[in-house]
Amino acid sequence: MAQAIGYMDSGVGGLTVVKETLKQLPYETVYFFGDQGRLPYGPRSATEVSQFAGQIGQYLLDKDIKMFVIACNTATYAALDDLRAMLPIPVIGVISPGARAATKVTRNHKIGLIATDGTIKSQAYEKSILAKDGRNEVFSVACQSFVTLVEDNEYTTEKAREIVKASLKDFDGTGIDTLILGCTHFPLLKPFIQEAVGPDVTLVDPAVETANMVTTMLDYFELTNATSKKELADQYFTSGDSKRFEAIANDWLPQNDIQAIHVPITDLETK
Amino acid sequence: MAQAIGYMDSGVGGLTVVKETLKQLPYETVYFFGDQGRLPYGPRSATEVSQFAGQIGQYLLDKDIKMFVIACNTATYAALDDLRAMLPIPVIGVISPGARAATKVTRNHKIGLIATDGTIKSQAYEKSILAKDGRNEVFSVACQSFVTLVEDNEYTTEKAREIVKASLKDFDGTGIDTLILGCTHFPLLKPFIQEAVGPDVTLVDPAVETANMVTTMLDYFELTNATSKKELADQYFTSGDSKRFEAIANDWLPQNDIQAIHVPITDLETK
Repeated sequence: MAQAIGYMDSGVGGLTVVKETLKQLPYETVYFFGDQGRLPYGPRSATEVSQFAGQIGQYLLDKDIKMFVIACNTATYAALDDLRAMLPIPVIGVISPGARAATKVTRNHKIGLIATDGTIKSQAYEKSILAKDGRNEVFSVACQSFVTLVEDNEYTTEKAREIVKASLKDFDGTGIDTLILGCTHFPLLKPFIQEAVGPDVTLVDPAVETANMVTTMLDYFELTNATSKKELADQYFTSGDSKRFEAIANDWLPQNDIQAIHVPITDLETK
Repeated sequence: MAQAIGYMDSGVGGLTVVKETLKQLPYETVYFFGDQGRLPYGPRSATEVSQFAGQIGQYLLDKDIKMFVIACNTATYAALDDLRAMLPIPVIGVISPGARAATKVTRNHKIGLIATDGTIKSQAYEKSILAKDGRNEVFSVACQSFVTLVEDNEYTTEKAREIVKASLKDFDGTGIDTLILGCTHFPLLKPFIQEAVGPDVTLVDPAVETANMVTTMLDYFELTNATSKKELADQYFTSGDSKRFEAIANDWLPQNDIQAIHVPITDLETK
């Protein structure tokens, strides 16, 4: 179908989900919205985050998307139920895919989780993981500062390496064999995270399983674009600075000519 | 939720899907129906197969299932759309999961397919695979006799080995790097199939991706049993001979004490 899939994140982190989806679905058009003008979401209330996500969902729905992916863990726990009730299209979050992936990977049932303050406090991952297998144990560490490292384009610096190392010390002695990157910004810090926890811990990036879920749901709802070509151009929107968005998007995605469209917050507030 | 997932097949083949699902979802109850009294489905008309599948769907719905898995390729192409329209619960088939899995696995875009006469004629796999990537080519060989080998519990015999070898000669020279086992009976013949096509061809068992889809859809529709224990006993039904069913089920599944319940065809025909 000649309709795009909509994605949202508080910033650029959700591009990790877009990247995985583009690998599986090269003919599906991406409309991505990064809410960098109101970043970070982690410390905000669930009510406020749900309101922001609803505005973005409506903004993209007005552009005729066929599915909406909340490519942000904080917004998933805060807004998934609300957006499902509000939007007349399938809405997918990243938490249940992340929980599914971790449950498949772990062998000793000790699962680590790093995420923003809001996601950790919500216990959404714990609930989903324990529902799948009551033998699982979840060890959580909030890593709010990682989001800023990525948004400031500092994710390959020595400073980032030190912060990651210090933050993940909290997992020493837990015996985890699996670590969920429970914020879509974190895969950009993957090399430092793997170094900090050691090679025996399997990192789970929910983006991969979310891409699987997008593909599955397109099939289930018969929404796959079957024309073997991309019928509409991808579009990237940000409520923040478009140059800043483009720098990271062009570094992280296979394309290198992404031009982001700036959308003022006042435009969202009328949605 | 204390409700079972329903599965159906023309015979025992669908147990390959049950086996994969039990690995991922040990707390979900299985109600499985093997229509051995009317086997094989492959040579029958789509209309008739859809009618049979509808009767079984209704039979299991009366036992309060929360999801219905058509664990049979022939019945998927013939009945998936009809059963989705008919049943008030999510209905999942095996063809789109198989097509998804093959599309992810292939590197040279040459995909082989073995299936029953009906599935091959329907071109359902071709359509689904080409929709995902127009560069793919599909090479199909009908292997109706494989079903009988499995149902007659002859799938480990030298006779089976010879028949498999002779049938798969048709792939010589095609250059396929991936082969879809497009009938749920065929995974029981996997060792002979792999031997016949050689170690460089990756066998794709749609059962694995179907189990992923079941897990995903339970999450999406919030139907997962979150109690960390199986609340209802599994039940296995057959319209054929229950002893024959039990022999294969107890060999193939991890359990060894399955007792199948015989359901006369006349009971189905009133559904």
